[in-house]
Amino acid sequence: MVRAAVLMAMVVPGLALAQGRSHHLMPVPAVVEWGTGALTIDGAFRVEPAGASDPRLDRALARFTERLARQTGLPVGVGQPADRPVTLTVAIVSASGAVPRLGDDESYTIAVTDRGARVDAPTTWGALRALETVLQLVEPDSAGFRIAAVRIADRPRFPWRGLLIDVARHWMPPEVIRRNLDAMAAVKLNVLHWHLTDDQGFRVESRVAPRLYQQGSDGFSYTQDEIREIVAYAADRGVRVVPEFDVPGHTTAWLVGHPELAAGPGPFLIERQWGVFDPTMDPTRDTVYAFLDAFFGEMVTLFPDEFLHIGGDEVNGKQWNASPGVARFKRERGLKDNHDLQVHFNRRLQEIVVRHGKRMAGWDEIFHPDLPRDVVIQSWRGPEALVEAARRGYLGILSSGYYLDHQRSAAHHYGNDPLGNLAAGLSDEERARVLGGEACMWAEFVSAETIDSRIWPRTAAIAERLWSPASVRDTADMYRRLDATSRWLDWTGVRHRSGYEPMLARLTGGRPTESLRVLADLLEPVKGYARPGTRPYTSVVPLNRLVDAARPESDVARRFGELVAAHLAGDRAARDSVAWWLRRWRENDGALRALIDASPALAEVRPVADDLRDVADIGLAAMGAAPSATSAALERAAQPKAEVLLMIVPAVRALAGLPPSSR
Amino acid sequence: MVRAAVLMAMVVPGLALAQGRSHHLMPVPAVVEWGTGALTIDGAFRVEPAGASDPRLDRALARFTERLARQTGLPVGVGQPADRPVTLTVAIVSASGAVPRLGDDESYTIAVTDRGARVDAPTTWGALRALETVLQLVEPDSAGFRIAAVRIADRPRFPWRGLLIDVARHWMPPEVIRRNLDAMAAVKLNVLHWHLTDDQGFRVESRVAPRLYQQGSDGFSYTQDEIREIVAYAADRGVRVVPEFDVPGHTTAWLVGHPELAAGPGPFLIERQWGVFDPTMDPTRDTVYAFLDAFFGEMVTLFPDEFLHIGGDEVNGKQWNASPGVARFKRERGLKDNHDLQVHFNRRLQEIVVRHGKRMAGWDEIFHPDLPRDVVIQSWRGPEALVEAARRGYLGILSSGYYLDHQRSAAHHYGNDPLGNLAAGLSDEERARVLGGEACMWAEFVSAETIDSRIWPRTAAIAERLWSPASVRDTADMYRRLDATSRWLDWTGVRHRSGYEPMLARLTGGRPTESLRVLADLLEPVKGYARPGTRPYTSVVPLNRLVDAARPESDVARRFGELVAAHLAGDRAARDSVAWWLRRWRENDGALRALIDASPALAEVRPVADDLRDVADIGLAAMGAAPSATSAALERAAQPKAEVLLMIVPAVRALAGLPPSSR
Repeated sequence: MVRAAVLMAMVVPGLALAQGRSHHLMPVPAVVEWGTGALTIDGAFRVEPAGASDPRLDRALARFTERLARQTGLPVGVGQPADRPVTLTVAIVSASGAVPRLGDDESYTIAVTDRGARVDAPTTWGALRALETVLQLVEPDSAGFRIAAVRIADRPRFPWRGLLIDVARHWMPPEVIRRNLDAMAAVKLNVLHWHLTDDQGFRVESRVAPRLYQQGSDGFSYTQDEIREIVAYAADRGVRVVPEFDVPGHTTAWLVGHPELAAGPGPFLIERQWGVFDPTMDPTRDTVYAFLDAFFGEMVTLFPDEFLHIGGDEVNGKQWNASPGVARFKRERGLKDNHDLQVHFNRRLQEIVVRHGKRMAGWDEIFHPDLPRDVVIQSWRGPEALVEAARRGYLGILSSGYYLDHQRSAAHHYGNDPLGNLAAGLSDEERARVLGGEACMWAEFVSAETIDSRIWPRTAAIAERLWSPASVRDTADMYRRLDATSRWLDWTGVRHRSGYEPMLARLTGGRPTESLRVLADLLEPVKGYARPGTRPYTSVVPLNRLVDAARPESDVARRFGELVAAHLAGDRAARDSVAWWLRRWRENDGALRALIDASPALAEVRPVADDLRDVADIGLAAMGAAPSATSAALERAAQPKAEVLLMIVPAVRALAGLPPSSR
Repeated sequence: MVRAAVLMAMVVPGLALAQGRSHHLMPVPAVVEWGTGALTIDGAFRVEPAGASDPRLDRALARFTERLARQTGLPVGVGQPADRPVTLTVAIVSASGAVPRLGDDESYTIAVTDRGARVDAPTTWGALRALETVLQLVEPDSAGFRIAAVRIADRPRFPWRGLLIDVARHWMPPEVIRRNLDAMAAVKLNVLHWHLTDDQGFRVESRVAPRLYQQGSDGFSYTQDEIREIVAYAADRGVRVVPEFDVPGHTTAWLVGHPELAAGPGPFLIERQWGVFDPTMDPTRDTVYAFLDAFFGEMVTLFPDEFLHIGGDEVNGKQWNASPGVARFKRERGLKDNHDLQVHFNRRLQEIVVRHGKRMAGWDEIFHPDLPRDVVIQSWRGPEALVEAARRGYLGILSSGYYLDHQRSAAHHYGNDPLGNLAAGLSDEERARVLGGEACMWAEFVSAETIDSRIWPRTAAIAERLWSPASVRDTADMYRRLDATSRWLDWTGVRHRSGYEPMLARLTGGRPTESLRVLADLLEPVKGYARPGTRPYTSVVPLNRLVDAARPESDVARRFGELVAAHLAGDRAARDSVAWWLRRWRENDGALRALIDASPALAEVRPVADDLRDVADIGLAAMGAAPSATSAALERAAQPKAEVLLMIVPAVRALAGLPPSSR
């Protein structure tokens, strides 16, 4: 019965108790008090609003009922007599405004007994957050489903909890945005930061300057109706939509149709490469500001949020340096360098933004003591900028440490606190200026097919960091709940799980994928900015290889590492499990080889399969007789191949008694 | 290396050559001639129409490009210069009409060389069929994707190739219909038979009689706009939509809002049970015909197809027998029994249908020599009715043998030919009256969540039976291609594969599902009409148990049976594979027990797990020492439990040297 022990050790969620009872809530609420008994959830379930009336709440309850039916398979709301008792009452004190605003109250309480459940919230937004918690509380029992008796009092730690989605590098159709909004709301995120323009694409219909999207998008842009629909869809879920129009750099796609805005000579073509490029707006000409004034004047009619994000990052200054006109302008105005010149640009932009009734947000490059204090600084280069901004009286949000495209672990992001060590010296007032953070899904290496698997489930861990009390920081318990949350997010419609198998099947040409999956489960894409170094990537290179199917974090490798640690600490059952997994990988080799031989798209995977065979052999040898010299082989296996990393190598090093690699 | 051999034997598709070269085409085209070389498919792919102009073809090519991008992950159609060479030309002689009609030409030819591909078709419909074949021809190679050089000439064997979807027993939202239309078109089916009304629901908005849907649908019905959109969606895919309004029986839902139509006294409530019920329209009153005349007059404005299906099945006659008025009517008209009375009803209905410019179709109960010859008879009670109808000059379609709700194997349906043995004595003219067939998805035991897994992939085998030459009947080759087709249908959006894992995860309460999947992969739901006998099912009983997740056909059990047969024939590798699988099932037992103990929703599965453990033990014993008396244990394990069947029992009987069970 080795296998049984193995599976138990590997796959049954830990029984760690969080606040007195095991649960799968994510983010963890501020206060949870378990009672006794449980409320039965069956086909007679009925939910009713109470308190102030809000059509948005009514729609939310209809969605709630639909999701409850989907998650449980219960025919909720079908064919029941209208006079049946109310199971769940959702009461709000007053209806929220038309769209969520920064700082709106999102608190709520939930009380569940065996006779019924009640949500109370001061606002509609709080009720929306509560409904997500209620859905997470539903658990199966022998008769069907139930909610354990509980009292919850909850509110967010930070008011700005965002996800940036870059739709410029790779086009993301409206349904991608919608399903991710559903998943965001499910983990209580409240800001979609929509990166709409960049060198590679201008993704919004403009009527005042139609050449922007007509010539700058390859035909892939949102109509104004689609924008309005998505903003309304987000508002219905209590999510703000902050649009980003990145200027003055990252603007090649603008300049295709409007070369007259550039500081250098055109013509310009939509950029196909990745990186930082020269085309930049000319900050010296009034016509540029007039253009932006008209353009932003149009955009504010589409985006009701009080913030407008103007980017401002990565201006390389080459076009400015090459322009005699720019040089003259700097001389005349006494601007000593390009940073000063960009500050000039930002101040004029800020006037435009304010004239249109908005507040400005930008990346940390825009930070300058001359800017008005109501600007929000988004820190991407490091937490220092955030702390410095808070010291000087600016509002800030953290994105450094939350870059999803870097393919880091959930634990890495989870440990990244906007009010971490660096902020220790801040006063309470200064700390209050740290509004929260944003996970960033930059899209050089994601397509509409793969983006969900890069965002989820890791962003749920970031969402918890931004919502839950700072004291909630048990990484093992986070992973336990993240595992359940990942499965559970399936029901919201995101495809981070369901897209995996079809991508593997494509690689095998329709052949069964089992042996490939055994390998792929152990792989992660290369980290940070390693991938563009491997081959000439452009926006027209397909993202359909094993590296694109591989998940950012290998759960099997992480758990195997835990098993090896337990075995080395003397745990006998863990030893059996370690041996079982090593054999499984070794014995998979023959089938995997046959599959690779038969599947041309897998040719590049052959050296990865070699590594797995070697590493499994080394591991098995280490568990049997005295291990031979294996260090060089393990170093080799630790090198990326086919842009993927074999994540079990560190554990097998430990097994073989080798120190951690110096790499 | 036992495992490698095992996996090879179990999972790598057979290398059987179909018409000279292994391919995954389904349905198999009439003529396939392979050439040499291949056409490269990459990001530079470009498709252009030629010949007659048809906006429907342009839309089809846009969808084709989008699907090619989805199936390959290639950024097809993005950022390529407009003057690149054409990869695929699609030429039609003349544009098809606004909607497909019975008997329209659907033929096409495809010619692929290493320089390009060309489709020629007399009609738009033929081009649509060809595009599906082209997508199935795309295969991965080491550089990306390609289409092997080939010449194909294809046309359907039968002109009526349908799928019935019952939306009355369980409501199916529009997106369920749309995604199934996409999958139908992918396997060249051309009729959606939409079963819109029954005792349990009236699913169409009517403006002339709004109480029909307002009181008869629990709020779940299609608006007229939704109906029009789906009809247009189907027409764009070359699929006819034949609506069924089942009368005079199966009409409880009509009678809730219009009790005056009934032959017996009301009031009536929407039926929650399954079966045949008493409420029936009164065939003696002119007001009933006037009502139907007005109602059908409205419906023909929504449904452009020339056929209107009036059901006509399962009239139990109880209300008629109980009505003095009906008895008097029969006496006065000399109608000797209720069948005569229903013929009277059908003849009057036929006049109404014809007056509204339509032809009538109905279930085989409507067959009667007095009916006009242009009626289509749908045979569900057996193929005899079809043959008899053809003999007497009526058109007919076969559904007997194609009932998807009976949970039979793909091989069972595949062997069911509308022109099978019974039709051997028919003349050519009589045979031509057999128009084709329809797979029937009756919805007592499917929900919107599970319906795809009951329709697909089995319906692809039926589609092949109805499209391909009668000589295409190699069941092993069908299964090889069905396996690839099933994976491939994923890309059309149906959820027959992706829905499995979330349903298992629900049963485990979010715990990992691996050990449950090992069991579930061996199970099938009980067959035929066995399920309603097990417990009191109604329309509000949830369909979220293991029996609902289990697939209608266990691929693993089927292949295990093949392995056992090979082993018993002396194949040594097969012997190793058989032993590996038995051990796998046996060793899974511990983890499965732990999961069942932790998952209240799985309590009913315990005896099924007992059976698997016993059967695996018996199999292992049979392969080792002389087997002990095991017949009784295997008989026990062959009994359904939790409404599922353990499908490996027959193979283990063979392994133990026992004769096939007498059950």
